Amino acid sequence: MNEKEIAAIVEKVISGTLTQTYEHEHHHVCKCGKNKMTLDKAKKLADAVAEKAKEMGVKAVIAVADKGGNPVLVQSMDDAYLASWDVALQKSYTVVALKMSTAKLAELAAPGGSLYGIQFTNQGRIVIFGGGEPLEVEGKIVGGLGVSGGSAEQDTALAAFGKEKFKEISEC
Amino acid sequence: MNEKEIAAIVEKVISGTLTQTYEHEHHHVCKCGKNKMTLDKAKKLADAVAEKAKEMGVKAVIAVADKGGNPVLVQSMDDAYLASWDVALQKSYTVVALKMSTAKLAELAAPGGSLYGIQFTNQGRIVIFGGGEPLEVEGKIVGGLGVSGGSAEQDTALAAFGKEKFKEISEC
Amino acid sequence: MNEKEIAAIVEKVISGTLTQTYEHEHHHVCKCGKNKMTLDKAKKLADAVAEKAKEMGVKAVIAVADKGGNPVLVQSMDDAYLASWDVALQKSYTVVALKMSTAKLAELAAPGGSLYGIQFTNQGRIVIFGGGEPLEVEGKIVGGLGVSGGSAEQDTALAAFGKEKFKEISEC
Amino acid sequence: MNEKEIAAIVEKVISGTLTQTYEHEHHHVCKCGKNKMTLDKAKKLADAVAEKAKEMGVKAVIAVADKGGNPVLVQSMDDAYLASWDVALQKSYTVVALKMSTAKLAELAAPGGSLYGIQFTNQGRIVIFGGGEPLEVEGKIVGGLGVSGGSAEQDTALAAFGKEKFKEISEC
Repeated sequence: MNEKEIAAIVEKVISGTLTQTYEHEHHHVCKCGKNKMTLDKAKKLADAVAEKAKEMGVKAVIAVADKGGNPVLVQSMDDAYLASWDVALQKSYTVVALKMSTAKLAELAAPGGSLYGIQFTNQGRIVIFGGGEPLEVEGKIVGGLGVSGGSAEQDTALAAFGKEKFKEISEC
Repeated sequence: MNEKEIAAIVEKVISGTLTQTYEHEHHHVCKCGKNKMTLDKAKKLADAVAEKAKEMGVKAVIAVADKGGNPVLVQSMDDAYLASWDVALQKSYTVVALKMSTAKLAELAAPGGSLYGIQFTNQGRIVIFGGGEPLEVEGKIVGGLGVSGGSAEQDTALAAFGKEKFKEISEC
Repeated sequence: MNEKEIAAIVEKVISGTLTQTYEHEHHHVCKCGKNKMTLDKAKKLADAVAEKAKEMGVKAVIAVADKGGNPVLVQSMDDAYLASWDVALQKSYTVVALKMSTAKLAELAAPGGSLYGIQFTNQGRIVIFGGGEPLEVEGKIVGGLGVSGGSAEQDTALAAFGKEKFKEISEC
Repeated sequence: MNEKEIAAIVEKVISGTLTQTYEHEHHHVCKCGKNKMTLDKAKKLADAVAEKAKEMGVKAVIAVADKGGNPVLVQSMDDAYLASWDVALQKSYTVVALKMSTAKLAELAAPGGSLYGIQFTNQGRIVIFGGGEPLEVEGKIVGGLGVSGGSAEQDTALAAFGKEKFKEISEC
């Protein structure tokens, strides 16, 4: 085996190892921006939720926030309630700010619950009924989804649908 | 001719006339919804403006309101200013609320101008620098466009671009 | 005895009397500032609470107010809830404003309680769940502590820990 | 050269290459969290600014935000203006939200400036006088610093001092 051959082997092994290590440790962060909310992802998510809402006969406002709780996209389906804009927007903030779905929060913030009263803080930005879900990639919250327009059950179902959909959307 | 027959004729004539008048006057409303802002149009408009912004190297927030001044769509291009969300949103309100572009308003609301002070009303919803344009169909305002993220000149140019683009989009 | 000598005596007596009275009446205030919230004490307190929180696995926001209910220090441990900032801050206000812990207030402000409704006053500044404690020196309230980030039980325990810790910190 | 020897060489080379690549591409993100605001960094920064303020005879409120514009730490030096709390906090938001110092913004938001009127948006969160600086690491904004309590010149000087100091603090 001459030097050149060894070098070739080394190069090959290095290349393989690098890719493996890279993929193992940093795949999601460094390779495809998996952990970052983008307008493109937010649009795909909102459109998927809107389509589902249409199937269910719900006219919803759909809001997507980034991991700082700042809005990336809010869209109002035709003829949705005007009041739903703020509700959807604040749901998308609430789930990032409290790291839980608004359906879960609804239980905790009910009279007698451990978070009863949280709804009076944060200048009205905390929404305590279903329709908000944190958006996660590999167990880390990267944004929030807020849906408002149907019944609490419908909004909750739409947000849950969106949460799952987001996993597909954020695949590399 | 008895009373009943006369009544039938009258009814028929009224009905026909009404339909004709209706069609004459409201043709565009009823046939293709030309005069109505929809989420679909708002998305087409926002995407066209975003594409133009990208060409210009601007990271903008783009907001579209309906003729009630209520938001239909707001989207933030990746890495846009956080402060631009509210500015774009309120520009889309301002142009509907005051029926003029925010560039025009900038002149009138400057110290000494005829509308100086308007910016302190409406709970901070009046924005007085370029980047907002009313969206018109056949001379009637059907919504508002707010763009924020570049210089006043860039935002103004993008809003003007969007105003023209909207005419194409709202063609039947 | 000339005028100058008299003046000197008068000056000396006044000065002595003043010091005595001062020491008698204001001993605790003037000697070591025991009764005054300072940034230095607030930092020691917040750091002690943060260390305890870390031990308990809680990521908390910790707020310290002075006896006017105004904030002196608010700090957010890494990865704490965004919503906890306002909750901790307002807890530190609430306990000064109502002279009781927020755990105590939680009971009184529950439906049917004697203070039910207090949570809708003060522009959302009244927080009605555990995690806030008035800070006292010799029976007098000198400030407030607000902790938010864990369960109501954890926040309550951390605030109680801080309340005790503050006694040590404010010793001369 | 036997297999074992080759393996040893390969391993050595791989290890070296890995470290290099890693350092080249991901050094700041993956190795030391250089690009992330933490409470620890915020405290070091606020303390350095407070020390400088003391030297200058200024009693300041010092606020540090993360890159989402959310507050990490706010501290009020003894006897600072009560009103400075909100001013410092909102300066730390403004510089992240508009990606420029508030001193720069002061020029642009003056009557006749291209951003005149920006101060009436964002619900009073935009502060348009000196004392706020974006905090940068390798050209990227990772947070914001807001200082309030002295004259505009003093606040501006303190924020500029803090901006430089932060570079040292965020070194690995």
